[in-house]
This record gives sequence, C-alpha cells and structure tokens, in this order.
Amino acid sequence: MRLFEKKGSDEYTIIIGCGRLGANLANTLSDAGRNVLIMDQSNDSFRRLSSGFGGLSVVGDGTDFDALQEAGIGNASVVVAVTNNDNTNIMVAQIARDIFHVEHVIARLYDPERECVYREFNIDTICPAVLSAKEIDKFLGNDDNSHLYEAKKVRA
Amino acid sequence: MRLFEKKGSDEYTIIIGCGRLGANLANTLSDAGRNVLIMDQSNDSFRRLSSGFGGLSVVGDGTDFDALQEAGIGNASVVVAVTNNDNTNIMVAQIARDIFHVEHVIARLYDPERECVYREFNIDTICPAVLSAKEIDKFLGNDDNSHLYEAKKVRA
Repeated sequence: MRLFEKKGSDEYTIIIGCGRLGANLANTLSDAGRNVLIMDQSNDSFRRLSSGFGGLSVVGDGTDFDALQEAGIGNASVVVAVTNNDNTNIMVAQIARDIFHVEHVIARLYDPERECVYREFNIDTICPAVLSAKEIDKFLGNDDNSHLYEAKKVRA
Repeated sequence: MRLFEKKGSDEYTIIIGCGRLGANLANTLSDAGRNVLIMDQSNDSFRRLSSGFGGLSVVGDGTDFDALQEAGIGNASVVVAVTNNDNTNIMVAQIARDIFHVEHVIARLYDPERECVYREFNIDTICPAVLSAKEIDKFLGNDDNSHLYEAKKVRA
C-alpha cells in the first residue's frame, strides 16, 4: 500500500511521534501548506492534531522499515524524530539518514549529554532544556550568556 | 535559619525544580557569576548540577511558604518555576508574584493550552514544545512561519 504519492514537491515531511512537539509542528507545517505525514504508535495521540490538520496521520512504529516505506520515506526531504524516547529518536534518525538518504534529519533529545553522539552521526538535534534555558535567559535580559549554553553539559 | 543573605545585588535568582532545564539554567547563571539558589524535593536531582556550580542547592518544596522564606525569596528578583508539573509551576509562580512580590516570575508549562491561564496571571511562560517546533522550523528554513506558533493551540 502506498499512502503518499510524491506531488512534485520536494517538501514532503515525515514526523515520527505525535506528542506535543510533533503535533505542534505538524499543525504548523500543515497550516503553511506543506505535505506532512505524522506517525505514532498510538492512535490516541492524534487527538493533539488541530481540526484543520491537512496531512496524513498513520499508526505505526517509526523504527520499522516497512512502516517507513509505506509512509513514503523515499520521497521525504525531511524526517523529524520527536518521540518521547531519545533512543528511538536516534534510531529513526539513523535509519532515515543512512538507509533512506533523507536530506534533512532532525531529532529531539531530552538528554543534552547525548548531543555528541548525534553530532557524530551528523544529525541535527533539538534539546528542549537548552532551548528553554536560553529563552529564560532572554527574559532575564542576559542575551550575552547565550554562548554559555552551546557547550553546556549537564551531568546525567 | 537563613540560607542566603542579600549581598547588595538585585540579581538573586531562585530556581524551583532541578530537572534538566533547572540544572542547565542554574549552571549557566552560576557560570555567569549570578547568585543562584536551586530547590528540589529530591536531593538526588542535584547530581545534574555541574561540579563548578557556585550557588546553593536546597532540598524543599517550592510551594511551601516556609521553605521559600528560608531560601530568601524576599531578596529574590527572579523566581523560575521549572518542576515537571505544570500545576506546581503555576502555584509557585503565583506565590512568588502575589505573596512575595518577586519582580520577574517565569514558569515552564508543558501544555500550551494552559498558556492563557498564565497570561491572565501576568506570568511569563516557557513552553518547550513551542520553542522546539520553532527551532525545527528554523532548521528547515521556514523562519516566515514563526507567527504561526504564537497563537497555536494544541488540543489537550
């Protein structure tokens, strides 16, 4: 079964994990007119999608080759791995990059200590704790501290 | 007991919750030479602080008036509520703002839907899912979508 046919756009995005971040991103990309497919192991997670969400939502395991192929990963230019598990995210990201040669692969990691692993695999990472700390610092008017976060390591 | 005496600085910051975000922020503010006290209900959480952390770490409940007073909240210009519980964070933020009249009060909230509640109470909020979605969008080169996140509501 083929869930998605390429429409001549190079902007097909697959999001793995429909938690708050995945849903927020899916809603926004959909609002911006992008082709989006979001996959989650639980159908219940899709309740987070807005009523106007115009993409596809698919129940499946993002580390499963067949599920990814059915989702049309071969046509995806972007894969975003944002499940609640860092190990799952890195596995999805590696599969997307190394097996399916997806151009942009982005993964969320909760643990900033793992960033070095991701960097080694050349995967862009999003670390909510680091982003939030930077934002708080901005609220406090300490923009000049931003460099301090880049190399910040928190003991796990 | 008085854990902290004001040192003539108006930059005394109290952080409630020593998870990844709290620890990251505490480490960074400490590195920047700020007076910081971090409180958590579990002593074990302080393992996340860097070895060079120069602030105070106190075991206590951030919603407990006595604990906050002992932590010197009367001298604090900033209180940051970043426990893993949105309800606790809003309670801490309200106490800090309404009882102790702290100048800057910032709270993390996981659920973007609650942002309106915080806004009503005039409390600055940090929503990791929204910040992360914005950052991913930046990676994808869609800076022009940033306005879409502002009013974004995710169904809870």
